[in-house]
Amino acid sequence: MQTLLDDITAAMAKETERGKVADYIPELAHVDPQQFGIALATVDGQHYSAGSATTPFSIQSISKVFTLTIALGKLGDGLWANVGREPSGDPFNSIVQLEHEGGKPRNPFINAGAIAVVDAIMMGHAPKETLAEILSFVRYIADDERICFDAKVAASEMAHRDRNASLAHFMKAFGRLRHDVDKVLGTYFHQCAIAMSCEQLAHAGLFLASDGVNKPSGLRVVSPQRARRINSLMMMCGHYDASGEFAFRVGLPGKSGVGGGILAIAPGHGAIAVWSPGLDEQGNSLLGVKALEMFAQRTQWSVFGH
Amino acid sequence: MQTLLDDITAAMAKETERGKVADYIPELAHVDPQQFGIALATVDGQHYSAGSATTPFSIQSISKVFTLTIALGKLGDGLWANVGREPSGDPFNSIVQLEHEGGKPRNPFINAGAIAVVDAIMMGHAPKETLAEILSFVRYIADDERICFDAKVAASEMAHRDRNASLAHFMKAFGRLRHDVDKVLGTYFHQCAIAMSCEQLAHAGLFLASDGVNKPSGLRVVSPQRARRINSLMMMCGHYDASGEFAFRVGLPGKSGVGGGILAIAPGHGAIAVWSPGLDEQGNSLLGVKALEMFAQRTQWSVFGH
Amino acid sequence: MQTLLDDITAAMAKETERGKVADYIPELAHVDPQQFGIALATVDGQHYSAGSATTPFSIQSISKVFTLTIALGKLGDGLWANVGREPSGDPFNSIVQLEHEGGKPRNPFINAGAIAVVDAIMMGHAPKETLAEILSFVRYIADDERICFDAKVAASEMAHRDRNASLAHFMKAFGRLRHDVDKVLGTYFHQCAIAMSCEQLAHAGLFLASDGVNKPSGLRVVSPQRARRINSLMMMCGHYDASGEFAFRVGLPGKSGVGGGILAIAPGHGAIAVWSPGLDEQGNSLLGVKALEMFAQRTQWSVFGH
Amino acid sequence: MQTLLDDITAAMAKETERGKVADYIPELAHVDPQQFGIALATVDGQHYSAGSATTPFSIQSISKVFTLTIALGKLGDGLWANVGREPSGDPFNSIVQLEHEGGKPRNPFINAGAIAVVDAIMMGHAPKETLAEILSFVRYIADDERICFDAKVAASEMAHRDRNASLAHFMKAFGRLRHDVDKVLGTYFHQCAIAMSCEQLAHAGLFLASDGVNKPSGLRVVSPQRARRINSLMMMCGHYDASGEFAFRVGLPGKSGVGGGILAIAPGHGAIAVWSPGLDEQGNSLLGVKALEMFAQRTQWSVFGH
Repeated sequence: MQTLLDDITAAMAKETERGKVADYIPELAHVDPQQFGIALATVDGQHYSAGSATTPFSIQSISKVFTLTIALGKLGDGLWANVGREPSGDPFNSIVQLEHEGGKPRNPFINAGAIAVVDAIMMGHAPKETLAEILSFVRYIADDERICFDAKVAASEMAHRDRNASLAHFMKAFGRLRHDVDKVLGTYFHQCAIAMSCEQLAHAGLFLASDGVNKPSGLRVVSPQRARRINSLMMMCGHYDASGEFAFRVGLPGKSGVGGGILAIAPGHGAIAVWSPGLDEQGNSLLGVKALEMFAQRTQWSVFGH
Repeated sequence: MQTLLDDITAAMAKETERGKVADYIPELAHVDPQQFGIALATVDGQHYSAGSATTPFSIQSISKVFTLTIALGKLGDGLWANVGREPSGDPFNSIVQLEHEGGKPRNPFINAGAIAVVDAIMMGHAPKETLAEILSFVRYIADDERICFDAKVAASEMAHRDRNASLAHFMKAFGRLRHDVDKVLGTYFHQCAIAMSCEQLAHAGLFLASDGVNKPSGLRVVSPQRARRINSLMMMCGHYDASGEFAFRVGLPGKSGVGGGILAIAPGHGAIAVWSPGLDEQGNSLLGVKALEMFAQRTQWSVFGH
Repeated sequence: MQTLLDDITAAMAKETERGKVADYIPELAHVDPQQFGIALATVDGQHYSAGSATTPFSIQSISKVFTLTIALGKLGDGLWANVGREPSGDPFNSIVQLEHEGGKPRNPFINAGAIAVVDAIMMGHAPKETLAEILSFVRYIADDERICFDAKVAASEMAHRDRNASLAHFMKAFGRLRHDVDKVLGTYFHQCAIAMSCEQLAHAGLFLASDGVNKPSGLRVVSPQRARRINSLMMMCGHYDASGEFAFRVGLPGKSGVGGGILAIAPGHGAIAVWSPGLDEQGNSLLGVKALEMFAQRTQWSVFGH
Repeated sequence: MQTLLDDITAAMAKETERGKVADYIPELAHVDPQQFGIALATVDGQHYSAGSATTPFSIQSISKVFTLTIALGKLGDGLWANVGREPSGDPFNSIVQLEHEGGKPRNPFINAGAIAVVDAIMMGHAPKETLAEILSFVRYIADDERICFDAKVAASEMAHRDRNASLAHFMKAFGRLRHDVDKVLGTYFHQCAIAMSCEQLAHAGLFLASDGVNKPSGLRVVSPQRARRINSLMMMCGHYDASGEFAFRVGLPGKSGVGGGILAIAPGHGAIAVWSPGLDEQGNSLLGVKALEMFAQRTQWSVFGH
């Protein structure tokens, strides 16, 4: 395994086409696109990593997997009253789809859906309390108390919130949000601004690869059924309008973030985190997807056959 | 296994809510909604079935899996020039999406995509020759020479072709179809009118569960990678705008047809075919999905964990 | 003429189907739907009215005609960089269309367009100053210093601003708004909350019927060409997705508001204001349109023939 | 008047930017873009023309005004059961809108609407009979028996019918068309292939400028109300998604065709036909619109003020 990760890292180092770093907020635009990291946490307790695997980066939308897990713990299937679980088709659909479907976002991984999930978690509490709860959960599953929000990234997102504010007000107009829009957004942007390394992320995702049990501690995070369901949502909706492409090329449930990270789950095997800041046209890490494709080919860990 | 299939059949017999038989063509509307069948073909060569598992029914859109396989055999990745591989979002999108994306259908399992796949297979030949080729392939993978087209169903579909004719002319206007629209549609409707039983269908799908090898003959139908990719497309797009729901509840790649059949693939385990003519609102077999959900829970064969 | 207005008022009093008072904000929901008023100001200086023609009501979207006039005075054709001048098709299009066309609203009379017009008028000034300017202009063309904002209506709209806030943030995300979203919305809601009677409104609209000259003062408000152009926009876009219907039935440029008022312009003849709070399904005054249809038939003042 | 038409023709001759001749069918692509013609028929019986005003050209969508008139004569308001009368927003909407609104086209001047109008006129008759009726009507209102179909243009359109065939099958799928799709399209393409000169066209349109009476014969073609209503539809929907622009710049009801012709109506004054084959981006004659704008400015015949 270590050889494989080293091979992948070496192969990625040779790639000259590295995509485009997210530039919609200044804080993300600063990141050096030459970086690449990969980490694997296996269900039998092994940890492997290569490249910049201990460098923290902004996990952005990968955080949606964690808030979804929290929300399901709090609301169970009640969550699905305000969030769907179908792929959204394409980015164009985001707000069109909201208009068509009464402000109910298609799934918890598009921005509108993730905002609705945060609103569901808040349950009348202040942003600060909700954020403490989210951070506490992430630290717990990653078994690492050092994980923090990047306040500068969160502030930068809040300052450029118009697109997400539009989505949030739209859902609020349909009665889909219970809390004040700016408070929900403030919480959401902090959640997205969690900084983690590949090693921390692979560790945090391990419970999804092992039927809901947080290895090696052996503590159950979610039921086996819930772990499967979260994985199914990652498979169907984890890469925006390139989810089909990711399933086709990699064959594993995964969730990407515009910070350049991807968390992929190989049920029964382990959790893999990759990071490379340059994005492809759909907003997924260009080298991250390539690295995972190489990883899946070599390990034969595709969920679709081996 | 036999006990499980018997249990499922008994449970389904007790269901009073059985959905609505497809009525858009008279030939399908005649089918008795009380019927239910299930069959399993395993990678180690076992066959199990229960209920009306030997009754032939119109496989309809399930045939798209077979024509996709043929098309990939003929064109390889060249197929993707005219067909995408992303979920389509919702039924509303079908023609909207075509308009937005230059007449290129989102995936090979929506009607527009399947029509483009047939056009790709034709390669200048007459409908009769193409149909012979499709039937020959299906008989081969099902190892059953009795499989036939239901000419009455095909004729009925042709007589009510307006919606599909609209899609086909639309793609033709964008240069996405090479053959005459009525010839392509005639071929497409015959393909959809293939009649198969659950036992035949499970047998035919087995190669997708066993890395491309047609068990028990041991003959390779497609490469392991291609089998995985077809499975990924079934997972992402196999149930129209309820694909996410099927992944969430069943956790297996599958393809449904408005005749009430569903073919599901459990990689490494086997292929399962169910049939019950009553459909839910999204056009998938109501009891078929329920039966597969029960099957997946009992076998723990979900691809998302076990 | 007086006889005609009396006849119309009598006919409207007999109507039992009176539509539905706007209820999206509590302040508008209180209004008594039994009221009806009509007023006519002619280009030769005559004034006629009947019914509740001196009762002030919330002019709502009719105010968009006045802010458009102000914006054209300040920016001239520069306004059209951020606002289009085509009918929008239907309400569904509002945000879809924004997404398709880079955040540029289709015309100045849909909500998004009117919000962009207010933003254009502000030119760096505070809402209070902009509002003073708007009110001053309306008082001037109506020749009536008593005209005021209804602060309760404005506050109620601000409290229920989510739908409009969504549109505003969306445009801001595309760089179409220069000012703070909440300041623009606060100004916009006050503008909509101007309270005027039919008599005041007919007087205020007279300049559009007389080639831009404010009769009887004789002062030029806009050039003849600009008056014609504003009229053309009212004709094409003045009644949301029932603009075609209004042109078909009434044949005059007009602008409606959800307060139940309509201002119609008969070029060369005069300006007509009607008011009845009950709305039809498209949000236009049910009796208002009927009254104008009767008025146009009797006067033969349609712009499409006589 | 003659001076004005001469001035316009001279001004247009100097224009170097002449747009792009329609090239979607070979027959239209052959036309020389240097040509320009203009003709005016006044309600008091005068005829003026300049430039290539006696050269026949393919009137294309202008024919929709004539078939609408025939359909209203046959069905009266019954026509509106299957055709709307609102502007369609934009070209993108054409088939999206059909999907949203149950296959009912937005207005009689978009292609889908005009196809539905032809279907309504057919009333069980063969295409040949319907075409004879259409031609007879056009010859009658133009008072010119020489007017004919251009069979080559019609055949060329039929050979490239896919986009319109898609619309027609779509409507048929919703039960909006009663006749065979190919027969309706054959009729429709012949109607569009009527060849007329500016002089003939201005004469044919005169009844719309004079309250429904065919000057100078004095025979009534339609009632005054119907003439106004047809004019209102031309105003609202006559120039596809540039209808607002035409109203803004010219201020007259009008209908354009991709052959480069435009028929404009000045109620109470006369009918103006212009022709120049080069089109702008929205498919309207580039010089035609310019010429009409100049004409309207000089005559002050805008319906929105004078």
